[in-house]
Amino acid sequence: MPDVRAIAFDAYGTLFDVHSVMAACREVTADPEALSLQWRAKQLEYTWLRALMGRYEDFWEVTQAALRFSLRRLAIEASEAQVGRLMEAYLSLSPFPEVPETLKALHPRCALAILSNGSPRMLQAAVESSGLKPYLHHVISVDSLRTYKPNPAVYDLAHKTMGVPANTVAFVSSNSFDVVGAKAFGLRVCWCNRAGAPLDALGFAPDVTVRRLDEIPKALGL
Amino acid sequence: MPDVRAIAFDAYGTLFDVHSVMAACREVTADPEALSLQWRAKQLEYTWLRALMGRYEDFWEVTQAALRFSLRRLAIEASEAQVGRLMEAYLSLSPFPEVPETLKALHPRCALAILSNGSPRMLQAAVESSGLKPYLHHVISVDSLRTYKPNPAVYDLAHKTMGVPANTVAFVSSNSFDVVGAKAFGLRVCWCNRAGAPLDALGFAPDVTVRRLDEIPKALGL
Repeated sequence: MPDVRAIAFDAYGTLFDVHSVMAACREVTADPEALSLQWRAKQLEYTWLRALMGRYEDFWEVTQAALRFSLRRLAIEASEAQVGRLMEAYLSLSPFPEVPETLKALHPRCALAILSNGSPRMLQAAVESSGLKPYLHHVISVDSLRTYKPNPAVYDLAHKTMGVPANTVAFVSSNSFDVVGAKAFGLRVCWCNRAGAPLDALGFAPDVTVRRLDEIPKALGL
Repeated sequence: MPDVRAIAFDAYGTLFDVHSVMAACREVTADPEALSLQWRAKQLEYTWLRALMGRYEDFWEVTQAALRFSLRRLAIEASEAQVGRLMEAYLSLSPFPEVPETLKALHPRCALAILSNGSPRMLQAAVESSGLKPYLHHVISVDSLRTYKPNPAVYDLAHKTMGVPANTVAFVSSNSFDVVGAKAFGLRVCWCNRAGAPLDALGFAPDVTVRRLDEIPKALGL
């Protein structure tokens, strides 16, 4: 295989810890973990359903709809101001601890990008607030395609935007369905399996698996 | 609106109780409910992901993959014979208690069909073992389309197969995403909300909502 010349990272759950919204969840419920998990599960579910129905709304809208459903489902009362603060938390998610140093180390060696379901505004806010912006050559959103992962069209966008052959791009994600989707499309894929979870049984496996992103340089031979 | 001339029912979760696999689950775990819920959630998730990836496998394969993943996820040991028995349970799911009498009563008044993700073999087995077969004019599977709900193409299949105008078909489902998908396509939709759950926040609402299927004749004016 040709050398890796570019790395595209998934954003939510991979670079950014979506459960860093927990502090904001604590403001409305005694069980912030339940809300955070329900919110995240519905957020993904709604991306799949909207993409499959051909009824795209951007990730900000989907995230807000998932939050409102989750509050109803868990019978949590929240004021509009509280909903607003929960949503704002998505604009300043914490990166996982090893992320800044890892991107800084990789940055001189190959082109780095984000390939994400996030809307352009959400992604810009997240890369700015986290300090990751200087290390990223491209921040690529599904928004121009008006669909969501794992639609193969999304994975096709990475190498086209980065201007390199598809087989020189490594895609890194913590989300099992995203790993499967990228692999089904034909990218080289690294699964960052932080939780030691089983791989989804969808017929595709990653090329390499790591537990943390700082294992990537060694795993990809960079 | 024109009168309802045909009713298409979702199968799993609507006519048939998917959690009637619980007895088989009890053979492999002390917490059969956890396995049953995880299995069902993954089964649906895999249909959405495969449809979105354009990687159709039939519902039997998807159901089996979801079972195997769920067993690993919950760290449940099961022999191949036990996996076989869990899968067999899907061929003889119990109908919800009011279903046989409801279909029997509706049968002389309008055309009845199933419109389901299930493979033709699974659906035939379920309608035969449940005794519902004599009341159903059509058993319609997504299999000929090689995609899954809520792809709009699936809902388009109902009236075409039944040979009636789309606006004379009522679609009945207990699954919130399925209600939304059918409504987004443009069918008249009845949500059988057995659990009193909140509706998914995907921008579409059913025309009528019932708690049990025996409320349908009144709700649809039949």
